[in-house]
Amino acid sequence: MERYNYGMVGLGVMGRNLLYNIADHGFSIAGFDLDEGKVKELGQEAAPEMKVQGLGSLEDFVSVLETPRKIILMVPAGKPVDAVLENLTPLLSKGDIVIDAGNSYFKDTERRIADLASKGFHFMGMGVSGGESGARRGPSIMPGGDQEAFGLLQPMLESIAAKVDGEACTAYMGKSSAGNYVKMVHNGIEYAIMQLISEAYDLLKKGANLNNDQLYQVFKEWNNGEMNSFLIEITRDIFQQKDDLTDGYLVDHILDKAGAKGTGKWTSEQAMEIGVSIPTIDIAVTSRILSAYKEERIKASELYAKEETTVPENTEAFIQEVGDALYLATLISYAQGLALLVKASEEYHFDIPLKDVVKIWRGGCIIRSVLLEKFYSAYTQDPNLSNILLNKEISEIVKSKIKALRKTAAFAASNGVSSLGIQTALGYFEAYTTASLPVNLIQAQRDYFGAHTYQRTDREGVFHTSWQNLNN
Amino acid sequence: MERYNYGMVGLGVMGRNLLYNIADHGFSIAGFDLDEGKVKELGQEAAPEMKVQGLGSLEDFVSVLETPRKIILMVPAGKPVDAVLENLTPLLSKGDIVIDAGNSYFKDTERRIADLASKGFHFMGMGVSGGESGARRGPSIMPGGDQEAFGLLQPMLESIAAKVDGEACTAYMGKSSAGNYVKMVHNGIEYAIMQLISEAYDLLKKGANLNNDQLYQVFKEWNNGEMNSFLIEITRDIFQQKDDLTDGYLVDHILDKAGAKGTGKWTSEQAMEIGVSIPTIDIAVTSRILSAYKEERIKASELYAKEETTVPENTEAFIQEVGDALYLATLISYAQGLALLVKASEEYHFDIPLKDVVKIWRGGCIIRSVLLEKFYSAYTQDPNLSNILLNKEISEIVKSKIKALRKTAAFAASNGVSSLGIQTALGYFEAYTTASLPVNLIQAQRDYFGAHTYQRTDREGVFHTSWQNLNN
Repeated sequence: MERYNYGMVGLGVMGRNLLYNIADHGFSIAGFDLDEGKVKELGQEAAPEMKVQGLGSLEDFVSVLETPRKIILMVPAGKPVDAVLENLTPLLSKGDIVIDAGNSYFKDTERRIADLASKGFHFMGMGVSGGESGARRGPSIMPGGDQEAFGLLQPMLESIAAKVDGEACTAYMGKSSAGNYVKMVHNGIEYAIMQLISEAYDLLKKGANLNNDQLYQVFKEWNNGEMNSFLIEITRDIFQQKDDLTDGYLVDHILDKAGAKGTGKWTSEQAMEIGVSIPTIDIAVTSRILSAYKEERIKASELYAKEETTVPENTEAFIQEVGDALYLATLISYAQGLALLVKASEEYHFDIPLKDVVKIWRGGCIIRSVLLEKFYSAYTQDPNLSNILLNKEISEIVKSKIKALRKTAAFAASNGVSSLGIQTALGYFEAYTTASLPVNLIQAQRDYFGAHTYQRTDREGVFHTSWQNLNN
Repeated sequence: MERYNYGMVGLGVMGRNLLYNIADHGFSIAGFDLDEGKVKELGQEAAPEMKVQGLGSLEDFVSVLETPRKIILMVPAGKPVDAVLENLTPLLSKGDIVIDAGNSYFKDTERRIADLASKGFHFMGMGVSGGESGARRGPSIMPGGDQEAFGLLQPMLESIAAKVDGEACTAYMGKSSAGNYVKMVHNGIEYAIMQLISEAYDLLKKGANLNNDQLYQVFKEWNNGEMNSFLIEITRDIFQQKDDLTDGYLVDHILDKAGAKGTGKWTSEQAMEIGVSIPTIDIAVTSRILSAYKEERIKASELYAKEETTVPENTEAFIQEVGDALYLATLISYAQGLALLVKASEEYHFDIPLKDVVKIWRGGCIIRSVLLEKFYSAYTQDPNLSNILLNKEISEIVKSKIKALRKTAAFAASNGVSSLGIQTALGYFEAYTTASLPVNLIQAQRDYFGAHTYQRTDREGVFHTSWQNLNN
């Protein structure tokens, strides 16, 4: 009996497409799913030259794999992963490798690594980004953990990953659950950029009265220049998508209540946990939450009528400014996410190679962008860069756009347009680049009412003052 | 042998002062601490008329208390509380009451309630705010959990709490760990207000070149009017505190690196967990984190030179605007925190009486302010108000200040002054009062790359589109 090189558990959108991608590159692969329909569909959809088999029994599935088995899980994060492992592990042999390719929480991965290691199996957390079409045609792949197991997978991963300048968008992301962690932060940055694009859209509509055709043109131009990126590209397309059910464009009929799957929230929680400031990612998460309060928003909008937005005299200049603001705020969002990775790498002893992270994000993934080339260059110059804003070349870009970001933020603030992403990106930049913040006052307050003590600017030590209450 | 009415475990700053406060009101109370020095000090400091005794042995301490024992813990949150309980519970009798008055995490309190209940003891989580002097002279006290135990404590709590118009600043906050939860959110709001005050200080210094004497005058005026509150009052005082070690004012010598104890972070994590948007509290937490990156900030400030702030022509008008902006941003921060309590009350079945929360925050606690009177009136009109911004009278205040908030936010943005608290308060308000947010675009993007589906504005159901890529 010929055995299959790989196994895939979970034949949903992502699992099925990743399986076909692997088969496309000459590897044989068996697929398993509890849903018989999906197993059947797999046989029908697969191209004749693919060595693919779908199985509805986990025992049969495991028995057709070559050893050491290399089994990829693409099932929803959380309990489903544990459920699969519970059924799967009794069927495995020593040395088998299980790769969790879903968006699992990194601490769950740590637990599973230890659990499977105690039974003689390898377990890896591996981030995969690129959505349905990325999985099928070439995603960005972020594996981490077991180096021995990684070595066995590497040739396959490099062949199925997206390519940029001939280089595969996959690399070893670090020890333990680093693969999941890097993917989590990738998604946090993705949240921030999507929030920023939505704010630019809002400003262009309210400030320059652009319609969908004009928005399409603006995003097309942006995508053809220095803002070239996957998210700008699909936004361009969205403005041209006609509605099937009514006249006009689909985007105008979509309800403004955003869903979320948890990775953005985890990123924010993690940043607070280990003490890194990522306000634009935080605000993107909390803005989605706020969007869900639709009924309250309608009620509040009736109580608080908005004034008309002032339309700037020079529309072209306004569009240019909004574009520059979006570009810089996006860059600052990457800076926040990457700074989180730097700290997490220390905190959890991941040894994350930041240079490789931005290198493999250049293609395949949702946050791919030509900006990543600049970050790659920055980390090539200094692999230990604590924040990309401190790189000389990056600073030149920032300086060329900062006025536009300030103007756009001021325009939004003056005109009653919510722009939490733009404001926090700017506010983060301003605080990060300020040597002396007004936080001395906060420390004074804390010492006043709670005797929390403070440090001084002019000498070492910890101080407490009996503050004088001037009412007495 | 005469037995003591109450026991206090933990004779640090807060424990000692709360103990004296209880003794002041005619209750006898024994104190225990592992630190012999603190036990000894207790005897020396207590006024002769107080019925107070310090004990260094937990066995002796427990044996001198009347039954059912009423033992208050004022020890650091986390492991110290569990350590005390481990030693204490074997010495208790059925029906004894243990009250945790520290800033314990509410989920820890839930666990301890169940644990002690299984042994026949009552356990309560009780928030206490007011710092050292509040504990001594009258704090705001937020007990929750066991109603039977609460009934036994109520007369004492009412006598030691702060009074506003003759009414005690304590009330039953709800079931289970509601007392800790309300205190946690209190502290989250406290973080936000302190951040906002520090930003107002920064703007007044940079925008109007005010010195400490002038700042004192401004905060004095503010505190004498509609902004009257504890935090404005102590800020006023801070600007008059002379430095002991050098010439000039102390505030100018305090290092701008803020500490934090965890309750702010917990508030932000909780809000994300249960889906409530509290961006101004989040930003206050993350701003403290950012302040700690002092060395990086100095490096960044050298790379990015700031331009001079434009000084507004009319200083008086500018100060007035900053004051109005601070007032409204503060109000919006309360709105966020109170909305979190509304949702938590549902989510965890706490049954938190919002009206009583704002009532007992009017005095004694760190966030006491004349504004609370207006919230009390709002919840009196509608105890189920989901957000105070929806109250008619509150909306009149908001409308009278919103222009100032917008102008101040725009001024800060234009001039490179970080004002994350002001910006997020404004951005939250603008988003909350917008019926249609640009989030339709985010839903389109999510459906485009991840097939996450969307809802429509014009019909029920869940939709997915095969979006057209215009590159093909």
